[in-house]
Amino acid sequence: MALIVKKFGGSSLADAKCLERVAWIIAESYSEGNSVVAVLSAQGDTTDELIEKAMEVNPNPSKREMDVLLSTGEQSSIALMAMTLEKLGLPAVSLTGWQIGMQTDSVYSSARIKNVATERLKAELDRRRIVLIAGFQGINKFDDITTLGRGGSDTTAVSIAVALNADLCQIYTDVEGIYTADPNEVAEAKKLDEITYDEMIELASLGAKVLHNRSIEMAKRYGIKVEVLSSLNRKPGTVVKGVTTVEHTKISGVAKDTDIARIAVVNIKDEPGVAFRLFRVLAGERINIDIILQSINREKMNDISFTVARKDLTRAVEVLEANKNEIGYSEISTTDKIAKISIVGAGMMSAPGVAAMMFEALFEAKINIGMISTSEIKISVLVDENEADRAVAAIHTKFYGE
Amino acid sequence: MALIVKKFGGSSLADAKCLERVAWIIAESYSEGNSVVAVLSAQGDTTDELIEKAMEVNPNPSKREMDVLLSTGEQSSIALMAMTLEKLGLPAVSLTGWQIGMQTDSVYSSARIKNVATERLKAELDRRRIVLIAGFQGINKFDDITTLGRGGSDTTAVSIAVALNADLCQIYTDVEGIYTADPNEVAEAKKLDEITYDEMIELASLGAKVLHNRSIEMAKRYGIKVEVLSSLNRKPGTVVKGVTTVEHTKISGVAKDTDIARIAVVNIKDEPGVAFRLFRVLAGERINIDIILQSINREKMNDISFTVARKDLTRAVEVLEANKNEIGYSEISTTDKIAKISIVGAGMMSAPGVAAMMFEALFEAKINIGMISTSEIKISVLVDENEADRAVAAIHTKFYGE
Repeated sequence: MALIVKKFGGSSLADAKCLERVAWIIAESYSEGNSVVAVLSAQGDTTDELIEKAMEVNPNPSKREMDVLLSTGEQSSIALMAMTLEKLGLPAVSLTGWQIGMQTDSVYSSARIKNVATERLKAELDRRRIVLIAGFQGINKFDDITTLGRGGSDTTAVSIAVALNADLCQIYTDVEGIYTADPNEVAEAKKLDEITYDEMIELASLGAKVLHNRSIEMAKRYGIKVEVLSSLNRKPGTVVKGVTTVEHTKISGVAKDTDIARIAVVNIKDEPGVAFRLFRVLAGERINIDIILQSINREKMNDISFTVARKDLTRAVEVLEANKNEIGYSEISTTDKIAKISIVGAGMMSAPGVAAMMFEALFEAKINIGMISTSEIKISVLVDENEADRAVAAIHTKFYGE
Repeated sequence: MALIVKKFGGSSLADAKCLERVAWIIAESYSEGNSVVAVLSAQGDTTDELIEKAMEVNPNPSKREMDVLLSTGEQSSIALMAMTLEKLGLPAVSLTGWQIGMQTDSVYSSARIKNVATERLKAELDRRRIVLIAGFQGINKFDDITTLGRGGSDTTAVSIAVALNADLCQIYTDVEGIYTADPNEVAEAKKLDEITYDEMIELASLGAKVLHNRSIEMAKRYGIKVEVLSSLNRKPGTVVKGVTTVEHTKISGVAKDTDIARIAVVNIKDEPGVAFRLFRVLAGERINIDIILQSINREKMNDISFTVARKDLTRAVEVLEANKNEIGYSEISTTDKIAKISIVGAGMMSAPGVAAMMFEALFEAKINIGMISTSEIKISVLVDENEADRAVAAIHTKFYGE
């Protein structure tokens, strides 16, 4: 029999009916003889409601107190789930972040996990209890409550799976797994049975929004098998692991990211250190750079283009203008009417023709390609924002058919 | 400058406006140079709403999980109050039951406080922070969350005042203090400036409902001065302490308790051990007895009458009937159409004529007196329930005038 960590998000726990549905999922696994730990998020819109309550009294509350407030959401969830399981006649015990010794650093609102004590957890499992853990929360070295930031409950689940050396970490959501494209936008999108950690990380960072990257990176580091599946049915989901057993003949997904903006720095001197100075001032403002393209102009002058998150655009331009003399350029042009389209697949680079197929699909759809960026398992291109959905559909069709 | 513990109930914290009003009370005391600890209840109807949520998933939840759920209410309160104080520019820190080391026994839902660690509390006060404590909650030796039961936040406040050796424990409510009678029923009721612990305990047990008896008993044991006052204005309230400085020329209050029923056990043998057997079977069922009257009849047979809480009436009769042979009596008669009217005053017994004044007032109002019971600081009589309010008014007028 296995030790399984299950994680349920807020929408799966929204009301008494949802709680009971989840309780049955837990009960089924437990009654098969497994040891079950369930990590729960706050119910439905609870977190947003708590944030609203805070804003009413103080539009700019301290993060420490925000964490004290928000952590009550998950605590309510675990107590209510324990009661729901008790009604089914099952032994359950709820435990908060501090009760399981979920040690984090002291960065309130986006703390990182440092250590999980396993004594209490193991003692409860040894008594054949279903253990319900409040996700998203921990304590720091001052015994103050911290939270892990949005998506933190995924990280809680994986970290507990690591600490207990669990056989499987199941992340229950409202979709049936990982798809080859966003199923809300591409009708032909197909569910994947398996995907590698690296592919999942690329897809998540490209806006697939199913799993938080921190949790996948942790799962990869410790080799924890993760399954993404639906809480609404009993179908198998997508397993995320180190090496997939089915060989990918195709790419594992097409993703779209519209949360980007492009900045072109025009007429920058072509001499050593220029690019370094440019990106140093941006790094100093904690602005992340994504795709970079350098084009060589006449008379030893270059243009450097790069993308940033859309929310960082204004700040990036400000800091570049403030350092115009130090960097040395003639002008800046920007646009946020662009989208990044990416295909992801482990070992893609060793399969010749994948990039060509992508470009061919875009050519046939008469979509212009802006910048191109490639990595071991990913090819990204920039296209006009208005053509993004058409681009995804064209690429998906090229690889998977109509 | 003083160390002051303040306690605010749920109705004083119901919404953002209430929170700000309370924040100003705290701010005022802090800015006068005092060290301030505030113990908070859950906001408004939060506790009832949480109970309702629990009932939806399980009508009979375990008390352990109920305590996990309910304790979130006070945790939200302290976080929101900390944010409110931060907005006023004041340094505040919220602390839960486990964070201050509020150790209790393991009786979930009605735990008793065993010890309060003061290290964290003192450290925060030394840093000149306003400390906000979640009332009503603690932890047991298993590191599980416990709650102290209804009225528990008063007990939290007094226990912290004891642990810190505070100069004053202020209990803020929606009334201005302790009155000579219920001001909602007796228009002439007067607020008392001072009252002794013992008088307060008698008044509370007689239905004055302002302070929880456990908290007053603890305050008495450790000599903590308690003030009951309103959070809606800045008037001084009623100070509860060991010896009142103003000598009471009159009684300190008239109270009514309609939550009682009378049981008469008729024709019980007049022999040693009979009363013992009678009350032992009731004690075995944890039924508390209040006023007892024994009347001697003809032929060595007695009647024994006593009062119990109204909710215990049916159970008391059942257990008496089940043990009819062992006790030995001919019949039982009961009524719950009665009320207990009491006057309370320290040293009343040494002031001749107080009892006579009470009886005179009832005689003039043509109200029949049932059983009478007296103690060092209290005289209680049973009257017909329909005449209870008239009895309170008549006695109050006799002692305090129109």
